[in-house]
Amino acid sequence: MAKVREVMDKFGNKHTYNEGMEGVLATTSEICHINGKEGKLIYRGIPIEELAEKSTFEETSYFLLYGELPTRKELDDFDARLKANRALPQEVLSIMKQMPSQSNTMQFLRTVVSLLGLYETKSDEHTVIETSHEAEKLIAVFPTIVAAIQRLREGKEPIAPDNSLGHAANLIYMVNGEKPDEFAARVLDICLILHAEHGFNASTFTSRVVISTLTDVHSAITAAIGSLRGPLHGGANEGVMHLLNEIGSLDKVEEIIKIKLETKAKIMGFGHRVYKVLDPRARILSQYSERLAQITGNETYYAMSKKIEDIMKREVGDRGIYPNVDFFSASVYHYLGFKLESYTPIFAVSRISGWAAHVMEQLRENRLFRPSSVYLGDIDRKYISISER
Amino acid sequence: MAKVREVMDKFGNKHTYNEGMEGVLATTSEICHINGKEGKLIYRGIPIEELAEKSTFEETSYFLLYGELPTRKELDDFDARLKANRALPQEVLSIMKQMPSQSNTMQFLRTVVSLLGLYETKSDEHTVIETSHEAEKLIAVFPTIVAAIQRLREGKEPIAPDNSLGHAANLIYMVNGEKPDEFAARVLDICLILHAEHGFNASTFTSRVVISTLTDVHSAITAAIGSLRGPLHGGANEGVMHLLNEIGSLDKVEEIIKIKLETKAKIMGFGHRVYKVLDPRARILSQYSERLAQITGNETYYAMSKKIEDIMKREVGDRGIYPNVDFFSASVYHYLGFKLESYTPIFAVSRISGWAAHVMEQLRENRLFRPSSVYLGDIDRKYISISER
Repeated sequence: MAKVREVMDKFGNKHTYNEGMEGVLATTSEICHINGKEGKLIYRGIPIEELAEKSTFEETSYFLLYGELPTRKELDDFDARLKANRALPQEVLSIMKQMPSQSNTMQFLRTVVSLLGLYETKSDEHTVIETSHEAEKLIAVFPTIVAAIQRLREGKEPIAPDNSLGHAANLIYMVNGEKPDEFAARVLDICLILHAEHGFNASTFTSRVVISTLTDVHSAITAAIGSLRGPLHGGANEGVMHLLNEIGSLDKVEEIIKIKLETKAKIMGFGHRVYKVLDPRARILSQYSERLAQITGNETYYAMSKKIEDIMKREVGDRGIYPNVDFFSASVYHYLGFKLESYTPIFAVSRISGWAAHVMEQLRENRLFRPSSVYLGDIDRKYISISER
Repeated sequence: MAKVREVMDKFGNKHTYNEGMEGVLATTSEICHINGKEGKLIYRGIPIEELAEKSTFEETSYFLLYGELPTRKELDDFDARLKANRALPQEVLSIMKQMPSQSNTMQFLRTVVSLLGLYETKSDEHTVIETSHEAEKLIAVFPTIVAAIQRLREGKEPIAPDNSLGHAANLIYMVNGEKPDEFAARVLDICLILHAEHGFNASTFTSRVVISTLTDVHSAITAAIGSLRGPLHGGANEGVMHLLNEIGSLDKVEEIIKIKLETKAKIMGFGHRVYKVLDPRARILSQYSERLAQITGNETYYAMSKKIEDIMKREVGDRGIYPNVDFFSASVYHYLGFKLESYTPIFAVSRISGWAAHVMEQLRENRLFRPSSVYLGDIDRKYISISER
């Protein structure tokens, strides 16, 4: 429930507002619907379970951006455009090599995306068509940036994209230099579908607020990346991995989780402002975490996650605190061989499609976002000269 | 008046919302109050007219950040910290020289600020104290970045800051290599005071939305720069200069403005969502534009501006359409010798203080901003396999 606050200003007027704008309607949208009570998530009318089972990230991205599932020809053309835009310009790669390689990966990603904007000479044309071209280029190049950042961090040379591979498979290839097996590529593909869109979350709302000034797409996406970095938003999946690493083995789960519950410590990956039942994305990811555990023969991370889920269900399930999308994506990314510092950047590789869809929708019927605030400061203060302070 | 829209969703529920969140209360703030009906603007209780007359940008920045006018010692210390942080790291300057020098100056600024974040190893410490340190560093370095961008654009070597000069004087010096006279430096100082803060405008709101995820300061400020760039926001001052250049001489003002009014074309620099009378900042800037016109002996830009104001007052004054802050800042910046492409970056040099104050205030009592939207898309759509589309 939204927390409504009532305040009195110094003019003697009473005001009420919802904390964090919870429950406040910002605008309309046709992109995503979340039913938090029933644990349902649909993209443009299609349940997430169906898309995860039958679609690909490329197709889902097209669907989010343009509102219709593509025909074979439309999908082939879209795919060809993405492949044509995967590579980073040499100048940008060269600058990336001079950036501090051990710095925060999300700050690095934000900077590279911002830098790419400088090469878009058309970025003063704020038509929906031009925006869609720039958005497609960003969807295409995000995996290349994220993989290059990880390689540079490890002191390795970035790997150029391989256009014989799909979007997800190519990301894994560019990170570790080996083409993934079909199952691993498909699991990452599903992760990208599941994270692509989620309504008016903080980063998506940010992208719409920024584009509503009619600025360029790179400004909106750069802003969204900065927002996604926050530990209250996309940064949470890293927190889950820290928790799993802190616990370390299956036999310690019960003890550590109980202590955390007793001391009211936050348990990362649980609870969501919107979902009051199990997040449908967590349900799907849980299955893939289990299968990857079996295939890799490394059961620990899935087993720990499952046990945490069971304990939480037993202890606080009646309070509507369930695993969210971050909870099982941590172990899935771990099994796919990604390093912790790549988790939130991979979230961005996926969410760029949702951001782009929202930016285009905002531009179709734009109105500058400019809310108000209640002024609670002084109302009649004199400027005292510095000698008298 | 806020435009309230009523919509019906496909579940049969009716929803109402304010377009652009106009009139919606986002949260409380003690930083700035605007009385749009009376044309009053106060920073933390002190009227803008008093600050413009008696304060400096450095002192006003301290006041915005920390809530009290500084003592002599506090101001000296603050000033010393700003001066100590004016210079850009050599690595950053070197990367800037490799960036496309003819690209958009706001995209350039956004990228450099984002890049600077990579050198902040403490940026995971989201305390208000640590945030204030990083914010002060950004206030200090913004003029150096903006001047360097302009120099690189003109194929010239960037000029290092001169710590014998105040904040405003040093900016002019770093742009054209000559120390400005006292009056020019003071006029820019006043411009910086006037633009430093303005409540929940789009870029400030952006910075608060981004920091509410508990991300780093550079993410919030990078996002704000991208928002300020928009032609519906900070980009408007460039639009005023385009208008003045389009008109070109005093004798053409009447004809061109009348045609624009008849064809309902937008006249840049007029009207404001909040002010329904003359923007108090425009009143102050108008006087300085006039004095600069006299001093430089170049009356045209002020005279054209004044005539446009008179015609607008006569023709549409009864509709509450008055000059806003952008209208006279265009001619003032012109007289101070700044190039058109530096206008919005100079706005950022000033507004960084307001953004920083809001970011710190948001962190003191944070709640993630996560509004809702009305879903108007499909609610029951099947995934059709690609062969059947």
